[in-house]
Amino acid sequence: MTETYAAAGVDIDLANQTVALIKKHVRSTFGPQVLGDIGLFGGLFHLQGYREPVLVASADGVGTKLKVAALLGRYHSLGLDIVHHCVNDILTCGAEPLFFMDYVAMGKLVPETVASLVSGMAEACRGVGCALLGGETAEMPGIYAPGDLDLVGFIVGAVERENVIDGRSILPGDVLLGLPSQGLHTNGYSLARRVFSITSQDPVASWDISYPELSRSLGEVLMEPHRCYYPLLKPVLPCIKGIAHITGGGLVDNVPRVLPDGLAARFYRGTWPVPAIFGLLQRRGDVTEQEMYRTFNMGLGMVLFCAEKDREWLQKAVPEAMRVGEVVERQGGDGVMLR
Amino acid sequence: MTETYAAAGVDIDLANQTVALIKKHVRSTFGPQVLGDIGLFGGLFHLQGYREPVLVASADGVGTKLKVAALLGRYHSLGLDIVHHCVNDILTCGAEPLFFMDYVAMGKLVPETVASLVSGMAEACRGVGCALLGGETAEMPGIYAPGDLDLVGFIVGAVERENVIDGRSILPGDVLLGLPSQGLHTNGYSLARRVFSITSQDPVASWDISYPELSRSLGEVLMEPHRCYYPLLKPVLPCIKGIAHITGGGLVDNVPRVLPDGLAARFYRGTWPVPAIFGLLQRRGDVTEQEMYRTFNMGLGMVLFCAEKDREWLQKAVPEAMRVGEVVERQGGDGVMLR
Repeated sequence: MTETYAAAGVDIDLANQTVALIKKHVRSTFGPQVLGDIGLFGGLFHLQGYREPVLVASADGVGTKLKVAALLGRYHSLGLDIVHHCVNDILTCGAEPLFFMDYVAMGKLVPETVASLVSGMAEACRGVGCALLGGETAEMPGIYAPGDLDLVGFIVGAVERENVIDGRSILPGDVLLGLPSQGLHTNGYSLARRVFSITSQDPVASWDISYPELSRSLGEVLMEPHRCYYPLLKPVLPCIKGIAHITGGGLVDNVPRVLPDGLAARFYRGTWPVPAIFGLLQRRGDVTEQEMYRTFNMGLGMVLFCAEKDREWLQKAVPEAMRVGEVVERQGGDGVMLR
Repeated sequence: MTETYAAAGVDIDLANQTVALIKKHVRSTFGPQVLGDIGLFGGLFHLQGYREPVLVASADGVGTKLKVAALLGRYHSLGLDIVHHCVNDILTCGAEPLFFMDYVAMGKLVPETVASLVSGMAEACRGVGCALLGGETAEMPGIYAPGDLDLVGFIVGAVERENVIDGRSILPGDVLLGLPSQGLHTNGYSLARRVFSITSQDPVASWDISYPELSRSLGEVLMEPHRCYYPLLKPVLPCIKGIAHITGGGLVDNVPRVLPDGLAARFYRGTWPVPAIFGLLQRRGDVTEQEMYRTFNMGLGMVLFCAEKDREWLQKAVPEAMRVGEVVERQGGDGVMLR
C-alpha cells in the first residue's frame, strides 16, 4: 500500500484551508507596527516609543476548560480566555500588550474550530490593541483524541524600565485591593468537571442543568470568559506596587509570588462577594475550605497592593476595587492568611 | 466523598516539585538582560543595543517526534529540538534570539520528564545566547493519556529594521544554497511512525532494529536533533537575500514562502546528498516522490537565496552550503521545480 502523510493522519490541504479561514481575523489585529504579512516563518513587530524597554513575556494554557468548551462547542469564548489570561499575566509587571501568538493542536484538524478560536483571540487582541502576530496549528493523531485539542497562548508586552511593577516596594500596612472575577476564569476545571460529572459520555448533558443557586445554566456559568483587567488598570498603574493574577493555586499560591521576603497578605473574608458557583462546587464536592482557596480564585481575579495613602484615589478611579486585606509582617507562617 | 484537586488529577505539590528541579537549568541561561527571577507572572527582558529594533517571534511544536522520544525516554534531545526549530524560524528574518519560553502539557505530571526536557532546552538556549525566560507546565488529565505529552516553544528575537531579511530583493538568476539537515528534524514523524510501525503497543521494539542502510539503529536516526543554523549563518547574514526553513510541507511548501510573486525556485536534484533514512522510508512505505518532498526535508534543513556575485564568498565562509538550484521566472506553474 502506498503511504501518504494524509493516510498517517496529517492533512496539509486541511492546514492550508485553515489558514485561508483565519487570515481576515488575524489581519484585523494588525497595526502599523506589524511588518510583513501572514505566512512568514516569524512574525515581525516594529518596537517603537520606548526609551528603555523591558519586554515582558508569558506562556499559558486554558487548562481543561478546553473539555467544557468542546462539549458546548464554544470555541470563540475560549479564544477570549487565552488572550485575557496572558494579558493579565504581563499586566502584573505593568506591561502593555504588544503581540500575541497561539498554538492550537488537535487530533484531527477541523478548520472551522480553529477559525472560531482565532476569531475569539482576534477580538480579545483588538480589545487591548495587541497584534495576533502568528501561531502554529498542529495536527497530531495519536496524541490528541479526535475531538480533543490544546490551546496555548504566548504574549509579549513592554514597559519602561522605571515603571516595572515587581512588588519590591510593598511594605507592612499596605492595602490589598481585590478585583472581582467572573467565575472560574481558566482554573480548577478538572475539579469542577469531576464534581459536576461533566464528561463526553454524560447522557444527561450535566452542563444544561439549572441549579437554583445559579442564574444561568451550569454550562453558561462555567464558560464565562476569563476577565481582562488591562483597560481597568491601565490608568492607575503608576500608584500600584504589586499585582497578583489569581490563577492555578488560587490566592494561596499566587499572592506570595509578588510579596517581598518577610511579608504576608492578610485577607478579611466577607469583604468581597464569592460567586455562587464556588459555594455550589464546595457543597456538591464536599471540598474543604483550604482546597477551595488553593484551587479557585474564589471571586478575586486580581489582587493589587498599594499604599494606604493612594487607596482612596485608586478606589475612586477603579470603583470595583474592593479593600480585601492588608500586608503584615510574616510571623514564620504562610504568605497568605485568610481570616 | 471529599473531592480534592489532586483526586481530580491535578497535583499542585508535584508542580512545585517540578519547579524546584528545573530552576538551575533555567537560571543557567540568564544573562544580565534578564530582570527578576523565576516565579513572577511574566518573564522580564531588558532590550538593549538596538537603534530601531524589529522583534521577530515564532511559535512551534515538535510534532509527533514526541511519540518516538517518549518510547525511547529521550526527552533531553526533544528539548534541543524545540529550541533549534524556533531559533531557525526567526533566523529566516535575520533575527538573533533573545528569549525562549516553553509550554509542557502532560496527562500525569512527571517532574523528572519535565526536568529532562528543560535541561535540553537550557543547553540549546545557552548555545545561542538566548534566555529561557519562562514557561508553563500543565497537568491535564483527560486530554493527554498518562504517558503522553505536548511540548511547545515560543521564541522572540530582534533585528535592526534595515537588516530584516524578507526575500523582497530576490531576483531571477539568484542562487539557491542548501544547508544539510541531520535527519527528519521535527517533521514527518506521523508518516515515519506509520511506515516503521512504531507504536507503544509494539512488542518487537521496532526502533531498535538496525537496517543495513542506516549506520545506527532506527531509533537513533529518528531521534537525531533538529540542527541549529544560527552559529553557522550569523556571520554571513548581510549577504543573504532570503532564507527558507524546511519544516512541515518540505521544500514544496516552504521555499515559496520567501519568494516574491512571479518567481520560482528550480532545484537540481542530485546536487545534494539525501540521507539514507529518506530512501528507506520511501521504499518501505512505497511513498511517492512528490509526497516525500512535501513531507520531509529530504536532506536540506535550510535553503538560502543570494546573488551569484556573493556565492563564492558565502560558500567559502560556510563550506557546507551547497549550490542546489537557481531562481527563475515563474511560468504559471508551481513555486518550486524539482529537476
